[in-house]
Amino acid sequence: MQQSDDSGAPSFNPLVVLELISDTKEEAIAWLLSRIRTPQQAGGAGLLVEQLGPGVSAEHKDNPNLFLVGASWERLLSGAEDVGLFKEYSDGSMRGFTCTNKHNFKDFQGDGDGFLSMAECQYIIKHELETLRAKDETHVPGYSNAKLYPGKSIISVRRLLSKGILIQMFPLHHKEELKRLSFSWYKKFKLSLQPLDEIRHYYGEGQALYFGFLEYFTFALVPMALFGVPYYMFDWEDYDKYVAFAVFNVVWCTIILELWKRSSATLAYHWGTLSRKKAFEEPRPGFHGVLGYNPVTDREEPLYPNAKRQLRIYLVSLPFVLLCLYLSLYVMMIYFQMEGWALSVHDQDPSFWTGVLLYIPSIIYAVVIEVMNLVYRYAAEFLTEWENHRLESSYQNHLVLKVLVFNFFNCFASLFYIAFVMQDMVLLSQSLATLLITSQILNQFMEAFLPYWLQRRRNKKMIRKVQKKRTPGDKELPLAEQVRLEADMSTYLGTFDDYLELFLLFGYVSLFSCVYPLAAVLVVLNNVTEVYSDAFKMCHVFKRPFADPAANIGVWQLAFETMSVIAVVTNCALIGMSPQVKAYFPESETQLILWTVAIEHGLLAFKFILTFLIPDVPKHIQIKLARLEFESLEALKKKRKVKEILEV
Amino acid sequence: MQQSDDSGAPSFNPLVVLELISDTKEEAIAWLLSRIRTPQQAGGAGLLVEQLGPGVSAEHKDNPNLFLVGASWERLLSGAEDVGLFKEYSDGSMRGFTCTNKHNFKDFQGDGDGFLSMAECQYIIKHELETLRAKDETHVPGYSNAKLYPGKSIISVRRLLSKGILIQMFPLHHKEELKRLSFSWYKKFKLSLQPLDEIRHYYGEGQALYFGFLEYFTFALVPMALFGVPYYMFDWEDYDKYVAFAVFNVVWCTIILELWKRSSATLAYHWGTLSRKKAFEEPRPGFHGVLGYNPVTDREEPLYPNAKRQLRIYLVSLPFVLLCLYLSLYVMMIYFQMEGWALSVHDQDPSFWTGVLLYIPSIIYAVVIEVMNLVYRYAAEFLTEWENHRLESSYQNHLVLKVLVFNFFNCFASLFYIAFVMQDMVLLSQSLATLLITSQILNQFMEAFLPYWLQRRRNKKMIRKVQKKRTPGDKELPLAEQVRLEADMSTYLGTFDDYLELFLLFGYVSLFSCVYPLAAVLVVLNNVTEVYSDAFKMCHVFKRPFADPAANIGVWQLAFETMSVIAVVTNCALIGMSPQVKAYFPESETQLILWTVAIEHGLLAFKFILTFLIPDVPKHIQIKLARLEFESLEALKKKRKVKEILEV
Repeated sequence: MQQSDDSGAPSFNPLVVLELISDTKEEAIAWLLSRIRTPQQAGGAGLLVEQLGPGVSAEHKDNPNLFLVGASWERLLSGAEDVGLFKEYSDGSMRGFTCTNKHNFKDFQGDGDGFLSMAECQYIIKHELETLRAKDETHVPGYSNAKLYPGKSIISVRRLLSKGILIQMFPLHHKEELKRLSFSWYKKFKLSLQPLDEIRHYYGEGQALYFGFLEYFTFALVPMALFGVPYYMFDWEDYDKYVAFAVFNVVWCTIILELWKRSSATLAYHWGTLSRKKAFEEPRPGFHGVLGYNPVTDREEPLYPNAKRQLRIYLVSLPFVLLCLYLSLYVMMIYFQMEGWALSVHDQDPSFWTGVLLYIPSIIYAVVIEVMNLVYRYAAEFLTEWENHRLESSYQNHLVLKVLVFNFFNCFASLFYIAFVMQDMVLLSQSLATLLITSQILNQFMEAFLPYWLQRRRNKKMIRKVQKKRTPGDKELPLAEQVRLEADMSTYLGTFDDYLELFLLFGYVSLFSCVYPLAAVLVVLNNVTEVYSDAFKMCHVFKRPFADPAANIGVWQLAFETMSVIAVVTNCALIGMSPQVKAYFPESETQLILWTVAIEHGLLAFKFILTFLIPDVPKHIQIKLARLEFESLEALKKKRKVKEILEV
Repeated sequence: MQQSDDSGAPSFNPLVVLELISDTKEEAIAWLLSRIRTPQQAGGAGLLVEQLGPGVSAEHKDNPNLFLVGASWERLLSGAEDVGLFKEYSDGSMRGFTCTNKHNFKDFQGDGDGFLSMAECQYIIKHELETLRAKDETHVPGYSNAKLYPGKSIISVRRLLSKGILIQMFPLHHKEELKRLSFSWYKKFKLSLQPLDEIRHYYGEGQALYFGFLEYFTFALVPMALFGVPYYMFDWEDYDKYVAFAVFNVVWCTIILELWKRSSATLAYHWGTLSRKKAFEEPRPGFHGVLGYNPVTDREEPLYPNAKRQLRIYLVSLPFVLLCLYLSLYVMMIYFQMEGWALSVHDQDPSFWTGVLLYIPSIIYAVVIEVMNLVYRYAAEFLTEWENHRLESSYQNHLVLKVLVFNFFNCFASLFYIAFVMQDMVLLSQSLATLLITSQILNQFMEAFLPYWLQRRRNKKMIRKVQKKRTPGDKELPLAEQVRLEADMSTYLGTFDDYLELFLLFGYVSLFSCVYPLAAVLVVLNNVTEVYSDAFKMCHVFKRPFADPAANIGVWQLAFETMSVIAVVTNCALIGMSPQVKAYFPESETQLILWTVAIEHGLLAFKFILTFLIPDVPKHIQIKLARLEFESLEALKKKRKVKEILEV
């Protein structure tokens, strides 16, 4: 086993772990390490890499092929330029970092140590590893079936993963920083905001934006919750109060979503992701096809005809989704039969136990919904994978669309049925409450407590193992053990499920809250615990994820906006159906419906105008962006003029 | 008077005319000419300029201060780089032109003569004149009230215009090219498309896009016209046929607007305006305020607080617009009274003349509408000017919004009233026909024949004057006379009115055509004549306009899309109200309305999904754009790598 002491500078700071399968051939390892170590000028990645030594508790079955990857500060800085990082300039604006004028950046001191956050360093290393390209190798040494050709990205998790050589690549936690972060994040009980900048510093922009959105959404719900409590307490059922609540609802939905765009732009600007140019997107791991030349890059890569993909989408995926929706409707009908049966039992023998029985169908239905969502989720992932999208972003969009449509239908179909077909408002408010509370409890359990409990067991085992061999009282785990422990943690699958949960909660609040005004209160309570459980799960349950330099919440903004449009329609319909409003038009139902429709159209128009009137990016950020663009245009002109003068 | 023979290269090709007032002080003229002639390296514009000699028909009252501006080919090419022109590269893609690799552009031959179109040359000269900035002058020599400060743009029509020194700046026509263009455009009667590339070559992208849109719109209307004729001929009034027409209408509206975006993107790509970066927008001519520093450019310029502008918009302009809308409603009510009176006269004494009388109120109303639109237009321009917008684009948007809202209301309010309040479909179809036909006749008259007649008179006078002094038979006017003749032509005020007219026609067709299916036929006929009259008016009635490098039809796309949304609502309502549909729900009007509303919502949702599914830019253009961006990113990386290797 080779020990990489030849590069061993004393300042080696391990950032990323590469885990290869335990029986990887020696020649493949040697080749890989040399490609990673070769300086950039010679076509390598120019990074530092070391094999992880056996821990104190070394056992025979431990995988020896764990490698720690790091880089010198100079290398990281040039990498920051490669990935196009934006940093604060000395004049307070955000500018693309370049090594040549590094000393003009605000936080750049001395040799640049501490200028980049750990998450940024890890992102840079991931990027450099993924863009390391084959030169003249035809295959991975020792693995003749793992084909390579000039220009193909080699180290990329994607290729090696599919050939079964690489197990995983993940960024290391930093014990000290993690302790500090978790203390200021959730350990002290206090009434203050989340430390978003610190979260971004440790986990990157994508995570921080999620927590920012969660916090924003919670605060935005507070006025609605306050508004809703008296309705619930005093059983207000007057016409005008009802309408007031619905109008408030509609305006609120629109405004909070618009304002979120602004605050997200502000956050993204200060984090440098707003104006960062996206690099060209490489094909995603699972993408396959006939080798050909990409029309954009002229590089050799698999091509897959778009027509074939469209056929798969429209002839297989779409019918499958429709079938699932039908199934979901069928289950809903069974629920209503159960509900009817429970009601008849209770009517025949009204006791405490039959009273409890009344809630049982709703609870069972809520559990079934969650199970169906889970199963469907796997099916949707499988189908979207099979559709063979070239880009990760396109894969994500199709997955989100499939999952959203089904979850929306699955969660809300019964409520729509009760509201508009059965027109039973009492049952509606009762169903809403049961669904909301059950799904919240289930979610928190599945999402945080279960993984926590599993991780705790693993953790304890490891500590016990170490303590067997060392003096007791030394609580800090040595590096080798920490790395092995983290390698065993579950992988965090991104913010998808977290956003999905918020989306459904937003639906419960905005669609039907004028029937059950307490919904907002419940959601606020849920969100407060959600912040803590999500924070805890990020810090202690899952493997640290790579940073994701997002500038906004992406497709979720659209999803929330669509939900708010649907909310306008349902709220108007609910108001039109309320007996208080009906009493206003005693002689003519037609008049009532026409008025309801007219008001609905007016509200929708108002909503669109509002969306249009509120600029997406705050004025002061707009000015800063315009200034940057103006300066680069002027610099270009000046350069051209200088050249002309020199030529003359 | 100085004659500029010092610069007089034999190849001097006059492109742009500057007209100063006839008693401009000599020192101001000398200063201006020297600033224009000074080479760029010394801070001038580096252009050629000559005073126009007196014509053969010189009269005492002729203005002697007409100057012809041109430039050498090298100067025009460096100007093309300054304004960021995109040209076809040798590999068929569109790239930003640079002088250093000019020989790699497809049409670049020899020394580059003929590489730029005349419209481009004129645009470049306009740009260079407008960005000519003051150095250390404190005021225009001889005019101490025309203040200047370092960095202030001096020649710009805007500053000098407001000080009463400059009368106008306009590009010259090119007799030969104009003849060729007008022949292939409208002189030969043929069934072929307009020569859009030639129009763009002569008038620039903004004009060509308008004519492209006009042509596209006309062709798009043909299926609708064909669809409508049998409805009109056979008086089809069946339920399903009606619905079929309306559904066709809705899908048609959405699809043509989406497809237009695609064809407009294709045109703009090949014309090089799609990927062209916009330069920083300077304040518009009329903008005034306290001198300060622009936060973006740090240049001294007038600043005007945004809050003050908002106050003017919401406290003055908005109430004014509302008042005008009220007035328009008032006039409409008078029209209905007249209509009632005419009807009663006809009922008492039904003769041919009283039958004609029935149409009189509609015709009068149509004329009044046109007059009100015209008067309101001036008021809107005045108000928007007074709102003091910093940017021309923001001024245009506010003006378009004001004018659109009023014109929409003014033209369609009576139709809405007849349709939904009076519910008189016979009157509706009759009113629609009268309004449509009258406004078409009036428009064509006001827009083309009147200015043509005026111009013809001027033209004849000039020719007679010239012929008095020269041998008869020489029909070509000498340059001096041609320039003076063009200087006297009316100024073309941009495509605003032309688009507005199309917008209203689109409204007539899409809103109510299921009541009057012949509308599409009438609009097609109108558009065919419109192409000819607009082409004629561009070529022979108005002064040649400067090119406007537009990439799309801008705010009008939004206006047309809004109209198509409104069309969905009205079409559904009209169908719901038709007696044939009502007969389907004999027992319950509520059911009918609910179904109508449900279908309307479904159609709206379908419309939005369609908008979302159809990509705005065709795939092959997307690939070309992505390729360009990828190459520039790669070039940047390579440059950085080379630098690094050199440093090491």
